[in-house]
Amino acid sequence: MDWTNNRLRLLDQTLLPTRVEYHELDRWPQVVTAITSMQVRGAPALGVAGAYATVLAAQEFKSLPFPDFLTKLAIAASSIAEARPTAVNLEWAVSCVLEAAKPATDAAEAVELLLEAAKTIEREDIKANHAIGGHGSALIPAGATLMTHCNAGALATAGYGTALGVIRTAWAQGKLKGVIATETRPLLQGARLTTWELTQAGIPTTLIVDSAAASVMRSGKVSAIVVGADRIAANGDVANKIGTYSLAVLAKAHNIPFYVAAPMSTVDLETPTGDQIVVEERAPGEVSSPQGVKAAPDEVGIFNPAFDVTPAEYVSAIITENGAFTAPYSDSLQVGAKSRG
Amino acid sequence: MDWTNNRLRLLDQTLLPTRVEYHELDRWPQVVTAITSMQVRGAPALGVAGAYATVLAAQEFKSLPFPDFLTKLAIAASSIAEARPTAVNLEWAVSCVLEAAKPATDAAEAVELLLEAAKTIEREDIKANHAIGGHGSALIPAGATLMTHCNAGALATAGYGTALGVIRTAWAQGKLKGVIATETRPLLQGARLTTWELTQAGIPTTLIVDSAAASVMRSGKVSAIVVGADRIAANGDVANKIGTYSLAVLAKAHNIPFYVAAPMSTVDLETPTGDQIVVEERAPGEVSSPQGVKAAPDEVGIFNPAFDVTPAEYVSAIITENGAFTAPYSDSLQVGAKSRG
Repeated sequence: MDWTNNRLRLLDQTLLPTRVEYHELDRWPQVVTAITSMQVRGAPALGVAGAYATVLAAQEFKSLPFPDFLTKLAIAASSIAEARPTAVNLEWAVSCVLEAAKPATDAAEAVELLLEAAKTIEREDIKANHAIGGHGSALIPAGATLMTHCNAGALATAGYGTALGVIRTAWAQGKLKGVIATETRPLLQGARLTTWELTQAGIPTTLIVDSAAASVMRSGKVSAIVVGADRIAANGDVANKIGTYSLAVLAKAHNIPFYVAAPMSTVDLETPTGDQIVVEERAPGEVSSPQGVKAAPDEVGIFNPAFDVTPAEYVSAIITENGAFTAPYSDSLQVGAKSRG
Repeated sequence: MDWTNNRLRLLDQTLLPTRVEYHELDRWPQVVTAITSMQVRGAPALGVAGAYATVLAAQEFKSLPFPDFLTKLAIAASSIAEARPTAVNLEWAVSCVLEAAKPATDAAEAVELLLEAAKTIEREDIKANHAIGGHGSALIPAGATLMTHCNAGALATAGYGTALGVIRTAWAQGKLKGVIATETRPLLQGARLTTWELTQAGIPTTLIVDSAAASVMRSGKVSAIVVGADRIAANGDVANKIGTYSLAVLAKAHNIPFYVAAPMSTVDLETPTGDQIVVEERAPGEVSSPQGVKAAPDEVGIFNPAFDVTPAEYVSAIITENGAFTAPYSDSLQVGAKSRG
């Protein structure tokens, strides 16, 4: 994902790894479509895309009288922020750039401030991921095999990755034996994106179906589990890709540390606990027609939550750019949020 | 699956639910191919298919001198018994029919005895499944929602089903609200076969991805879990489709009863514990190319165990045609095996 010629250039993640195809988007509704169709996904990446989408909206309304510009921009921004409900980074980034543009006295100035703020979010996210990598790797023993779920990599962020940031740093420090990636049904982000990123980085990676994770843990091959997050509540409850909660419970049963890696922008102190997090339900076809091939009869009901919530008690540490925090999270995340400012 | 005109007629389960297609097999190697390619699967169904494959082999060698007939039959029988390693019913059924044919003094008589024994195995399996249904349903509370994994239904047996036998009986007795079926990657027996069987029976069924099972359990919607088995060791350890162990650990963490339904022919008292059970690993393509569509890059390693082993401590009861047995299984399964005779 990058910003060039006043456009957002996006790698279409739905086509990976078979096709590497970029789309150039110059209108904000195109970005909303890219978000809902998951051409771009991953909480921090959604934040960056949402910020640039707001810039595109401002560019579009630039010639309107300033009050009309502001009204139109606010409406567009709210559509962008609501494109997907679970990842907090999307609404956070949109309100962040709007806030930065508040001092503007005309549309041109607003566009400029918005763009500057969006670029800052992108730059800070990459910086945060490298810091997360360092703090996370410090928790990983030498010769470790790490398990990860879904994709919390360069593709899910502005670059480097959160969970994959920890993995990349541990690999660079010579600590890592390899990675076990769960395929992550229904949309196979583990199989399609994580194994693609990791094998490109030369990191030995083994792919398993999601339901094999338990017996692999029992075999003693997993040193720790590292995943990303879409929203972390003030008490440390973690919303992340469906299947994360399953891995967390299984990790506890096998005495394996379970780490969540995410920038502070994913920590939502306004949401007291996981109970208040809205979990998006997606289209039944993602389940009934894997890879576009119909598998289930029409008569069957489908329940397709995109996320689940892992209670804080299952989380060994939350690894942020400001350090790795442990329970009680209602205290440690407050401290972490303050050390950002 | 049925025996007509000296042939084995098999429903090709790899094509369900989109296509209902039968193959007529008149040579035993065709049955071995049907078994390895999973056109027929499920421990009890493998037993019945293996028994009929042995009959087909005997028919083929019938015109040989009797000692040659016996040698050739023994070699074919051992190939049939070894077609898949984990389900004990396959080797059990083959040695069962061979044993029944021992008194034969010529090939024609042997064919007759083998066929009679194979038909008995088929008939007894259906009878066992109905008994399992009754014993299992007695454990299910009124208004229950049951979760099941893979397919332990009519398709996996000679008819009616083991886990689905319990579900069918509970439904017939008006106890059941509905069923939650896990899709069961990599080959989607839950999505393709279980939902097909259950919706045909008019039982309300909801399909989820395997990794959603944990959060569905946490939501309080699951009254009990019922699965089948491929082999049960003397101590009550259960080998079954990959993902079964995961559900068992998650069930325990959520205080949900976890039941295994299987005929006594699946109980292998010669295998002391799960550690001695050979778990088949299948082709990587089942994981890397879901539904035949390539999803993962070539560089990635794949670990594709077809089964896992659930330690007896996670099993609330083993439901057989001779009753539902509880821990300590090393005692109760011995009693159950004797009450068969």
